[in-house]
Amino acid sequence: MTIFPAHYSGPTLGEVGEHRAIEAIITAAPSSRNGDDAAVLNHASPNSRAVATTDMLIEGRHFRADWSTPEEIGQKAIVQNFADIEAMGARPIAALLAIAAPPHTPVSYIRGIAAGINERVGEYSAELVGGDLTSGDHLVLSVTAIGSLGGSRPELTLDRARPGQRVVAHGSIGWSAAGLALLERFGRDAVPEQFTPLVEAHCAPRLNPGRGVIARATGATAMTDNSDGLIADLGTIARRSGVGIDLHSADVAPAPLVAEAAELLGADPWEWVMSGGEDHTLLATTAGDPPSGFRSIGRVVRGDGVTINGEDPKYTHGWVSF
Amino acid sequence: MTIFPAHYSGPTLGEVGEHRAIEAIITAAPSSRNGDDAAVLNHASPNSRAVATTDMLIEGRHFRADWSTPEEIGQKAIVQNFADIEAMGARPIAALLAIAAPPHTPVSYIRGIAAGINERVGEYSAELVGGDLTSGDHLVLSVTAIGSLGGSRPELTLDRARPGQRVVAHGSIGWSAAGLALLERFGRDAVPEQFTPLVEAHCAPRLNPGRGVIARATGATAMTDNSDGLIADLGTIARRSGVGIDLHSADVAPAPLVAEAAELLGADPWEWVMSGGEDHTLLATTAGDPPSGFRSIGRVVRGDGVTINGEDPKYTHGWVSF
Repeated sequence: MTIFPAHYSGPTLGEVGEHRAIEAIITAAPSSRNGDDAAVLNHASPNSRAVATTDMLIEGRHFRADWSTPEEIGQKAIVQNFADIEAMGARPIAALLAIAAPPHTPVSYIRGIAAGINERVGEYSAELVGGDLTSGDHLVLSVTAIGSLGGSRPELTLDRARPGQRVVAHGSIGWSAAGLALLERFGRDAVPEQFTPLVEAHCAPRLNPGRGVIARATGATAMTDNSDGLIADLGTIARRSGVGIDLHSADVAPAPLVAEAAELLGADPWEWVMSGGEDHTLLATTAGDPPSGFRSIGRVVRGDGVTINGEDPKYTHGWVSF
Repeated sequence: MTIFPAHYSGPTLGEVGEHRAIEAIITAAPSSRNGDDAAVLNHASPNSRAVATTDMLIEGRHFRADWSTPEEIGQKAIVQNFADIEAMGARPIAALLAIAAPPHTPVSYIRGIAAGINERVGEYSAELVGGDLTSGDHLVLSVTAIGSLGGSRPELTLDRARPGQRVVAHGSIGWSAAGLALLERFGRDAVPEQFTPLVEAHCAPRLNPGRGVIARATGATAMTDNSDGLIADLGTIARRSGVGIDLHSADVAPAPLVAEAAELLGADPWEWVMSGGEDHTLLATTAGDPPSGFRSIGRVVRGDGVTINGEDPKYTHGWVSF
């Protein structure tokens, strides 16, 4: 049973009912396309194709109501789905939100989730176009993202990395795992203030919108995002492409703030870098220079698996659901 | 905690892990578009627009593992989402499936859900193109359907019914509610055999694919599906269109099998007809003759609300989540 922080007060879902709760969502995340049996999206550009992905977030597993604000939960749900759209080289245009929530959920909490969604979809000029709200024992969010893939270049699948290409990244690596470790040790309110960027990277990750489209336009070959862990996700590209990937340790070394958090916690920051997922950093391969906003972190090589400076990584595990 | 029927045996999700379970899903419901960060859909026809909708199904609320087979659960999840796509006059082309399931869930059970999904999407020439599988205490399915809306006619929104138009329906009305009442009384195994069509209408509703497209092509104006209840759903069209709807009692009268079930249970079959949802029968308005496969059930009139033979309906409540 999900427990909501006491400062979310006011009427509950059970008190106001489904229709007024949906009104609260639509008011917080408005779209003229919402409110019918299904949402009709815009005419897309010539030859464009629709791209779709979905992710489910369960309270207590993918987020915690005592660590994240509802706004952050909404932001995270959008970013992790939109990162998958961007990882194809496509542009996110719409999101759908299905929520299961207990009757004792404050409407203000649901409104907060919708506000967080609205903030992030707005950064992409996208909209929340539809959804479903139902009663459940636990708070569960299921977000679907829809994107548009224009132009004639192929989409950025996992299987097009080739030996000799550069491995590039856009975004931080290991920050989300560091934030999670800090939350586990201190709880949200007691994390030392200088680590706020790490906690926020975990609770409400943020990407610079449009980097996936830019990477595809400037010659990226394969792309994914760091959702399960750096080694695990690059390992998927390596396996699907039939290649090896060698990372340069200096280019993926823990950021000073991450190293500082590790020292405080007595942890190895390299574990966060190699195994920590949920950064949703874009990871791509390219035959050219790093696309704008990306930095080089290694090379595609003949062989298989992922190495660091030619050696097996110390940490290889990633997120697993079971 | 979801309890699975004993005859689903073999390895569990907790034993085989996420990746092998996803393999089982993809094998049961194959698509070449599945398996990357996001699914890229086909080039659509000129000027076509994407249409999207989502619905969440929770074990114990929207279905019961002791009443429905996993195949039926998958079928129901698709039909209720595809009905929303059809209700816009669009053609369903793809589905995404997010599942939360306990670690003790047999993989054979998940495979059954995927097989049911595959059967129904196949009837529409659609595909299961992506999804998510995560661990949760309860079995929760969240399905997103994506459709394609071709041609230049407007989509069939809820607000275009006009006085003088016919109200038409494709599909049965009240069958799902009758089936649910029989299940509640007898449990699945003890429902008298002659009522199997009613039980199946509840556990695995079925629509004749393409009726939404046909209705739009032949002049339908507004459309929805009977998901919350006949009076409730037509009431939404009436309210959004600023009109009244008068049903002809003879045209919505309970089918003989529904009446027979009501007699056995001592129930009023008209309650199932008026208030029972989940038939996913398409309900439309049109200025012309009923589209192929549809029958006339009433008229759009000046005024507001829904009446039967000019009088207030005896039952008006519909499904509410809270």
